[in-house]
Amino acid sequence: MTKPIDFRTDPSKYRHWRVEYDGTVANLFMDVDERGGLIDGYELKLNSYDLGVDIELADIVQRMRFEHPEIGCVVMRSGKDNVFCAGANIRMLGKADHAHKVNFCKFTNETRNTYEAAAKDSNQHYICAVRGSCAGGGYELALACNHIILTDDASSAVSLPEVPLLAVLPGTGGLTRVSDKRHVRRDLADVFCSSEEGVRGKKAKDWALVDEVVPNSKFDQVVAQRAKEFAQKADTGDVAGIALPIIARSIDGNLIKYDTLTVEIDRNRRTATLEITAPKNAPPKTLTQLQKQGADNWLLACARQLDDAILHLRFNEIDIGILIFKATGDPATVAAHERFLFENNSNWLAREILLNWKRVLKRIDLTSRSMIALVTPGSCFTGILAELLFAADRSYMADGAFEGDNRPPAEITLTQANFGPLAMSNGLTRLETRFWGNDGVAAGMTDRQNHPLDAQAAHALGLVTFALDDIDWDDEIRVFLEERASFSPDALTGMEANLRFAGVETLETRVFGRLTAWQNWIFQRPNAVGEDGALQRYGSGMRAKYNKDRV
Amino acid sequence: MTKPIDFRTDPSKYRHWRVEYDGTVANLFMDVDERGGLIDGYELKLNSYDLGVDIELADIVQRMRFEHPEIGCVVMRSGKDNVFCAGANIRMLGKADHAHKVNFCKFTNETRNTYEAAAKDSNQHYICAVRGSCAGGGYELALACNHIILTDDASSAVSLPEVPLLAVLPGTGGLTRVSDKRHVRRDLADVFCSSEEGVRGKKAKDWALVDEVVPNSKFDQVVAQRAKEFAQKADTGDVAGIALPIIARSIDGNLIKYDTLTVEIDRNRRTATLEITAPKNAPPKTLTQLQKQGADNWLLACARQLDDAILHLRFNEIDIGILIFKATGDPATVAAHERFLFENNSNWLAREILLNWKRVLKRIDLTSRSMIALVTPGSCFTGILAELLFAADRSYMADGAFEGDNRPPAEITLTQANFGPLAMSNGLTRLETRFWGNDGVAAGMTDRQNHPLDAQAAHALGLVTFALDDIDWDDEIRVFLEERASFSPDALTGMEANLRFAGVETLETRVFGRLTAWQNWIFQRPNAVGEDGALQRYGSGMRAKYNKDRV
Repeated sequence: MTKPIDFRTDPSKYRHWRVEYDGTVANLFMDVDERGGLIDGYELKLNSYDLGVDIELADIVQRMRFEHPEIGCVVMRSGKDNVFCAGANIRMLGKADHAHKVNFCKFTNETRNTYEAAAKDSNQHYICAVRGSCAGGGYELALACNHIILTDDASSAVSLPEVPLLAVLPGTGGLTRVSDKRHVRRDLADVFCSSEEGVRGKKAKDWALVDEVVPNSKFDQVVAQRAKEFAQKADTGDVAGIALPIIARSIDGNLIKYDTLTVEIDRNRRTATLEITAPKNAPPKTLTQLQKQGADNWLLACARQLDDAILHLRFNEIDIGILIFKATGDPATVAAHERFLFENNSNWLAREILLNWKRVLKRIDLTSRSMIALVTPGSCFTGILAELLFAADRSYMADGAFEGDNRPPAEITLTQANFGPLAMSNGLTRLETRFWGNDGVAAGMTDRQNHPLDAQAAHALGLVTFALDDIDWDDEIRVFLEERASFSPDALTGMEANLRFAGVETLETRVFGRLTAWQNWIFQRPNAVGEDGALQRYGSGMRAKYNKDRV
Repeated sequence: MTKPIDFRTDPSKYRHWRVEYDGTVANLFMDVDERGGLIDGYELKLNSYDLGVDIELADIVQRMRFEHPEIGCVVMRSGKDNVFCAGANIRMLGKADHAHKVNFCKFTNETRNTYEAAAKDSNQHYICAVRGSCAGGGYELALACNHIILTDDASSAVSLPEVPLLAVLPGTGGLTRVSDKRHVRRDLADVFCSSEEGVRGKKAKDWALVDEVVPNSKFDQVVAQRAKEFAQKADTGDVAGIALPIIARSIDGNLIKYDTLTVEIDRNRRTATLEITAPKNAPPKTLTQLQKQGADNWLLACARQLDDAILHLRFNEIDIGILIFKATGDPATVAAHERFLFENNSNWLAREILLNWKRVLKRIDLTSRSMIALVTPGSCFTGILAELLFAADRSYMADGAFEGDNRPPAEITLTQANFGPLAMSNGLTRLETRFWGNDGVAAGMTDRQNHPLDAQAAHALGLVTFALDDIDWDDEIRVFLEERASFSPDALTGMEANLRFAGVETLETRVFGRLTAWQNWIFQRPNAVGEDGALQRYGSGMRAKYNKDRV
């Protein structure tokens, strides 16, 4: 797993998916190239997938929103004759180290979440049209769609055979969506998840595993009809998309440069400093200008670049334990840029840019690195960018001017961005999570909107962890970074996964909390990953050997 | 860890705690006997604890309810001069195998939950009076109390130093209660949980880590005053308790016999069959009779014996993968016994017996074994006992008479017990959880109360998984048991932990789901448990060596 993984792609590079556009309906074919594995050593048989397949899917979902806002319904289907999808590739999982397995599952879960939310957020409904075997991760692809149609023949079944076959969980949301989304009764879910062959036909509908079961002879007709209905309901209107060119970046040693962001890696301290630079120009004045800017719009560019940087760090820099967020530039310009979007959020593109930020910030919440934000003189933690302060595990704010530094003293400005549109996976704003249990504190801050807060004020309100003057600044931060880097990364991952998500849980947080945490545990257990474990022995003709102790 | 662990104890056997009763206040002193470790090889220094210490605490909490219903306030304090409690014993954790660590944490969590709920359920308020260091599991003891008073001196601090010192989590609810119960701001919680020395004095109060900080000179006085206030508020009335004699049982090879319950272990099939026998006698007619019966009351006896059996199986029979629940006898007698309690649930003892069932059933929900219920002719799954059907992962019900069996055909009867008083950890009834997302289905069953349902009716209502006739019964169950026993126990644990808890999460389920699942993962990671890991090296003078990859 040493070759760096690049998350940037576009349709010209796809090997595993193709999309056919038909008015307001998109037909999305999964047709995995067996020899197109991201890493050598396995073949992606039976439409099984690895990270490379999922990177393309994530790209498709993102482009569907920005390049094809006219689409009201996406039909996910197989491009193969006899199989829908066999799930995550087992040989890949068997070869992958623990960190890659965990990272892979997190990314695939995030991808499922993005298209699951597409109907609600962006009026793009995903239908899954299942013909052939739809097993494990294949059924999890379907579960994240808004509507599942299954053909009624002897070979088409949905199944979650992970427990009986592989000694792991259906970990891409499968267990959680079966109970929380589809409301399959828990004992029937137990029967279903213990079965290698799964459930087909009428029983699949009776148990709520699919929404419709359709005779094979009418399958295409019903799928087309349903797609048309969903698309009509979506009523996306007469809109034209914008192009999303591949994100430009340069990697030079420990420095990664994007247009709006630089990432500097310090391998001794095991930190990556992500410094966002505020826009130099005023926001667009009209929606026509916004549309013309397209992917060059500063807020869209910054969201995409930040997302790419986070994914790069997650997969390619796994021993970098601490992310340090900085933001430099004029806070008023940042505020003006986001204000333009909020004032025009009935426009599809303005809405999509804000929704993209929502997704990027969620990805940051779920990144298993310690995160801090440094609010220094000349910084611009305003509105959307201030969310980074509340996503971070702690924040340090400079109190007053620094010697020899003539930039304006540090300030923070809350805006409407902080009070609803960028909710976390738990459905709460980051401020609500921060002040969880202290009723009204977060809501009470709405009257602080649009007024810059200095370090004393921000600290008094509880918006930053520490307000430090010039004298203490360097030492405090150095000591913190050294200390944090000395701790066990595993313990930090567990601690942060608990403290970041106070209070309520949702389907999404239950997938990343309960389900994923158990899966990660199982991914460490010899029964799954040991020499005689199921992931190693799968396909070898030898049965796995299990230690039968119950833990 | 081969010596069987006995959970049955009484005050005459305590080595680590003592209780002084003073009217309606009980003073509970933790004074751990260093040489009283449950297992050889470690000393319980500085009021650190192992399972043996916690078994006594659980016994105290249980006896407080039944033997001392007059108590309105329990003050938890240290019997040592300079330390409150140093938490779970690290050498014990370092020596313990993975299964014991997991089982130990689950039991201690259950004990914390029982006294945390005592105020709400039984009007017994727990105050924690902290003098001296209160670290890790020590602070978690405090967190589960209703009110924490900290003395204000240089050596008295609360802390959760697990992450920096031991590379594990504060896993006995610490992280969850800090955020969800005490509403400590997440960044301050991050600072707190990263600090070896913890927080003391005014800052502990400002950060909401404790409820009161009191000068040392006034400590005893304030604690006594507060205890008096809580006890007065509790207003327990003029009640006399009942004695809880040590539970009688005989273990003869694979057969464990209690008065109301037998447990039969089949080591080949790796099953334990728990068969409850209905009472032969009518319920008490009056509260005086109930009080006179005391621990002999059938429902109380059954709850205590079932609880003991579950704990015995959890700790002493860890390769028994499947629990099979049966209940034999006259359903009408079972119904009459519980009806008496419900009709008299303003009486403290009737209420406590029902609450005890609530706790036992929660313990069953959290038991990481596959569980099935067999509803056979002559069985009595009625009301409280029917909850076992809904706690089980699946249930099989006999449809019609069995050849050569002249007992009455199998029936199930729902009662008021199934509609509220025995809620799961997630705050829902088992029926609500079973029909989660299908609004009104559980509530709609209230009009089925008190009418026996045969297999067809129960199956149609979704109350059992399978209704099988005589011809299929033996084969179906044999095949299921063989199949289940062939699966990886770890995968089953993860699957069941997800499917049993559909829908909402509460502080309790977040402790057992999110927090515990992460802790169990960490308990498998070399950074914690490897040769050079923190749990092994603690106290050796050598720093732990960590793999710095972030997963």
